[in-house]
Amino acid sequence: MESIQHEKGTISIHTENIFPIIKKFLYSDHEIFLRELVSNAVDATQKLKQLASFGEFNGELGDLKVTVSLDEEAKTITISDNGIGMTADEIKKYINQIAFSGASDFLEKYKDKTDDKGQIIGHFGLGFYSAFMVAKEVEIVTKSYRENAEAARWVCDGSTEYELTAAERPERGTDIILHIAEDSEEFLNKGRIRGILDKYARFLPTPVEFDGEVVNNTTPIWTKSPSELTDEDYKTFYRELYPMSEEPLFWIHLNVDYPFNLTGILYFPRIKNELRFQREKIQLYSRQVFITDEVKDVVPDFLMMLHGVIDSPDIPLNVSRSFLQADTNVKKINGYITRKVADKLNELFNADRKGFEEKFDDIGLFIKYGILSDEKFWERAKNFVLLKSTDGTYATIDEYREKTQANQTNKSDTLVWLYTTDRKQQDAYVASATRRGYDVLLLDNVIDAHFINALESKLEKVQLQRVDADTLDKLIDKDISNDSVLSTDDQTKLKELYEKTLDNKTLTITVAAMPADEMPVTITQPEFMRRMKDMSALSGEQSFYGNMPAMYNVAINANHPLIGRLLAETDEAAQQSLVKQTYDLALLAQNMLTGAELTAFVQRTVAKL
Amino acid sequence: MESIQHEKGTISIHTENIFPIIKKFLYSDHEIFLRELVSNAVDATQKLKQLASFGEFNGELGDLKVTVSLDEEAKTITISDNGIGMTADEIKKYINQIAFSGASDFLEKYKDKTDDKGQIIGHFGLGFYSAFMVAKEVEIVTKSYRENAEAARWVCDGSTEYELTAAERPERGTDIILHIAEDSEEFLNKGRIRGILDKYARFLPTPVEFDGEVVNNTTPIWTKSPSELTDEDYKTFYRELYPMSEEPLFWIHLNVDYPFNLTGILYFPRIKNELRFQREKIQLYSRQVFITDEVKDVVPDFLMMLHGVIDSPDIPLNVSRSFLQADTNVKKINGYITRKVADKLNELFNADRKGFEEKFDDIGLFIKYGILSDEKFWERAKNFVLLKSTDGTYATIDEYREKTQANQTNKSDTLVWLYTTDRKQQDAYVASATRRGYDVLLLDNVIDAHFINALESKLEKVQLQRVDADTLDKLIDKDISNDSVLSTDDQTKLKELYEKTLDNKTLTITVAAMPADEMPVTITQPEFMRRMKDMSALSGEQSFYGNMPAMYNVAINANHPLIGRLLAETDEAAQQSLVKQTYDLALLAQNMLTGAELTAFVQRTVAKL
Repeated sequence: MESIQHEKGTISIHTENIFPIIKKFLYSDHEIFLRELVSNAVDATQKLKQLASFGEFNGELGDLKVTVSLDEEAKTITISDNGIGMTADEIKKYINQIAFSGASDFLEKYKDKTDDKGQIIGHFGLGFYSAFMVAKEVEIVTKSYRENAEAARWVCDGSTEYELTAAERPERGTDIILHIAEDSEEFLNKGRIRGILDKYARFLPTPVEFDGEVVNNTTPIWTKSPSELTDEDYKTFYRELYPMSEEPLFWIHLNVDYPFNLTGILYFPRIKNELRFQREKIQLYSRQVFITDEVKDVVPDFLMMLHGVIDSPDIPLNVSRSFLQADTNVKKINGYITRKVADKLNELFNADRKGFEEKFDDIGLFIKYGILSDEKFWERAKNFVLLKSTDGTYATIDEYREKTQANQTNKSDTLVWLYTTDRKQQDAYVASATRRGYDVLLLDNVIDAHFINALESKLEKVQLQRVDADTLDKLIDKDISNDSVLSTDDQTKLKELYEKTLDNKTLTITVAAMPADEMPVTITQPEFMRRMKDMSALSGEQSFYGNMPAMYNVAINANHPLIGRLLAETDEAAQQSLVKQTYDLALLAQNMLTGAELTAFVQRTVAKL
Repeated sequence: MESIQHEKGTISIHTENIFPIIKKFLYSDHEIFLRELVSNAVDATQKLKQLASFGEFNGELGDLKVTVSLDEEAKTITISDNGIGMTADEIKKYINQIAFSGASDFLEKYKDKTDDKGQIIGHFGLGFYSAFMVAKEVEIVTKSYRENAEAARWVCDGSTEYELTAAERPERGTDIILHIAEDSEEFLNKGRIRGILDKYARFLPTPVEFDGEVVNNTTPIWTKSPSELTDEDYKTFYRELYPMSEEPLFWIHLNVDYPFNLTGILYFPRIKNELRFQREKIQLYSRQVFITDEVKDVVPDFLMMLHGVIDSPDIPLNVSRSFLQADTNVKKINGYITRKVADKLNELFNADRKGFEEKFDDIGLFIKYGILSDEKFWERAKNFVLLKSTDGTYATIDEYREKTQANQTNKSDTLVWLYTTDRKQQDAYVASATRRGYDVLLLDNVIDAHFINALESKLEKVQLQRVDADTLDKLIDKDISNDSVLSTDDQTKLKELYEKTLDNKTLTITVAAMPADEMPVTITQPEFMRRMKDMSALSGEQSFYGNMPAMYNVAINANHPLIGRLLAETDEAAQQSLVKQTYDLALLAQNMLTGAELTAFVQRTVAKL
């Protein structure tokens, strides 16, 4: 064996091995070939326009267009354009060598002549090879825009062998002729091709003709300046995107050049309290080429329920999600969109408070979600997020603080805000609180469980208590005790009587001096424990609190006349029946009388009618 | 311009362009570098073992092992093995040329000597280059197992330039020394490295040492034959995989060689009626290398709640999901797993009916989901899927048909199966049905809404009706009418009285002759409409039925004594109060008395005590 020579060299790639990989790994979705080839063709026309504007092309531009044609007999799909075309040398450079340099060469050459670089960076490069995902043979017939250019024909059968010859093509431009492979004959179908074009080519900047019709709108409104557009234009475009949807609430026109390039329109849809809003309604474009409707990571999570269009050449495509998350441009875009949304909401709030309130049932979910997920958004939103009371009025946080200050501050100088998570189910409690002049907030959305925690942690000396978390005197403890008509002995006797009769370890029974017009017995569930259990249920995971049995407090109203009568009752059976009946009614008021016990209660009541 | 020459050639790839792409696109997760390099090292030891078994290596195998070491000072991570090593020529062939041929060459040469091809196809090839995701310089020091082999050293700084020289290495094997780049210093951390090894190397077949400890179990139980294993072995392995989980219900040992290679163990966890079971609990391995816990598309969707391990070299890795879905092996694997699960369930059912019933609350969800999603699974499952009655008994479909035949066949010879979706809420109705000797099924899981439809479409002459969908005489209409104690005139008067007093367009009021011990008024909700509304709510989408107001039927029991009294009442206010009270009690029994109306009912009842 000869000994090792010191050697320097260059790592090489075996073409015969990498080519199938590029073909296979490039795009998971085979229909993408048409997006790539049509957008290459569009680029070829746009580049010619650009060259004309630099004075590098002085010929007739004519009607620039791209034509897609299907020959079911010959089993071919042809993509033709009358753009810049290629010389044989350019074919050798850009097609025969798999590289990423096509567009960058062009860009390099003209970089001083334009700042609109987005317009000319093509998908040139790997995109072309996606043709081999569906074609067994690919033919290029092309003629450059250059004077005296000769037409050339290039053919490749999907191996890495190509053939290049002179050709006949009277006019400048390129035809890409795909001889469709057997396993891809699904694409030899008019409806299928039209469907793919409708998906990807709908807003391309050069007319794309198929089957005698132009399939695209070359100047979608996001490419225009907001000052040229009316409200009706925005609404029309919304209907164009989502034909079956209700009118949007409002919209934001995005337009930024630096430090990244992004245009687009985001619509706020009507969603009410629906939790199962439709995500994936934002479409992502790159220079008017549709890319995807999975915008996760590009748009902040809390704005995923928005609808509309984002167009940016600066979002890296065809990379995995974890790359997207780490991409600096994507992070900046995220921040920018959040800021624009906060600006718009703030503007709406200031310009039309009443209108803002009317829209709040729709947009509150966004705002609260934003507050929970983004500290910067909270800084803006704390001025316009609204709290809705059960009486239907809305207040900002500061307004609500003022509104409740006098009547709902407890002995520790903490403001206690009462809320209900279910207006109907907690009706008896809401009614009691309202009778005392307390305000009750309506926080009945799933997100409110989190929002309540966020409010408490962000606001000082504010505590939130669900309206049935305790008796009102305890919920807002002002250290004023009502007098009890019962002696201490009687109270003890009463407590023992209920404990013995109900015989339930999960109940904590107390006797309290409440107004005589309150219920004889009230059941409450302590805030902390209930909140922990709710959170545990929301998370769907096993947890300490989730597994604890629910604990309830039972308060007997010493001042209710029925309780006095019950104490005085000498017949033991009658007394026990009254204990049970008052407890059943308390359960009923708390929506906790169910199943066989409810059936028995109903039957008992029917029998007494 | 010279004219175009006919030319044939080969498409080439510019290395300087493709290399960063390979580095960047290969894996989205940078920590993968360690999986790739450690499994390459393991392969090198396994290959040597294989060569020894073919008689091609006659030296001392010694203790084959892989060592990972970390030098925080020098900022290096080294992966060493005492496997086959490489000669300088092999480095030139396998490292300097990016290709996929490394393993296939080896395979080609030895293909007649083994049918266990899975064992020797390495990740050789692209995997090695993942080193450049984290290293600014990669060094290989290696010495082949061949006699008189010289050690070689290869260095590359992440450009495509390499340097190859002779080296000193006393023993056979390979060291890969990574000089970690600044942006990847997170990996220069003992805990981090250990974490990555625990994730990916836990069950590699050669001992992997890090920080003085062997981190892996080289013979996990799925590589053994079921006959060597006890129940305790399976349970121990389950605890090893999921330390915090309850004991599994049972398990299936997968073992197939043809037409694909797959081993593994799937466990049925205890899930009860929890809908939010944890998916992503199945780990996918390729020859004991951990790949992912996202097994979507490999495992049938309805079995995603299973836990355990699947190991197959035949599942294509690093390809997109739509490729996975289309992959023939993956389809076969899917079918195989489904079949094995059906076999196991059938075996359990036959071997231990009582045990099967006890487990049914846990496994019913899988079985029903399987029935809904796979026609072949239904063919098997129809013999062992159980229907649970409210009295706690279980029956197969055939048994239940027999059980209900005599009493629940209606006049059209259709078997009517009654069910409840909420045992507590529909208690009053269940109690009435039970009093008549009817059986009521408990179908209270979210999946049951779909299961009910599936049962009706798959079984002939069987109809399912929720127990509160109509009065019992109508639900199972045997064409036997009860006599009414009221005259037709009285019935009309009664109907008009209720219609006028309740004044609610969504109610359809009828007078029916029911047994005197039924409720005076019953509220029912027609099956079809309710089912459509339920489905619409489940799907979360706007629909025709979802937007319809709920319609209710109100049946007045002509034979109830209270109704007679009500008709005879001469005081109009008292009569109306009775109408309202009977209606409120009917609402209460149907859990429809809520909010302010419930509060008023409770207060009225308290006042009457």
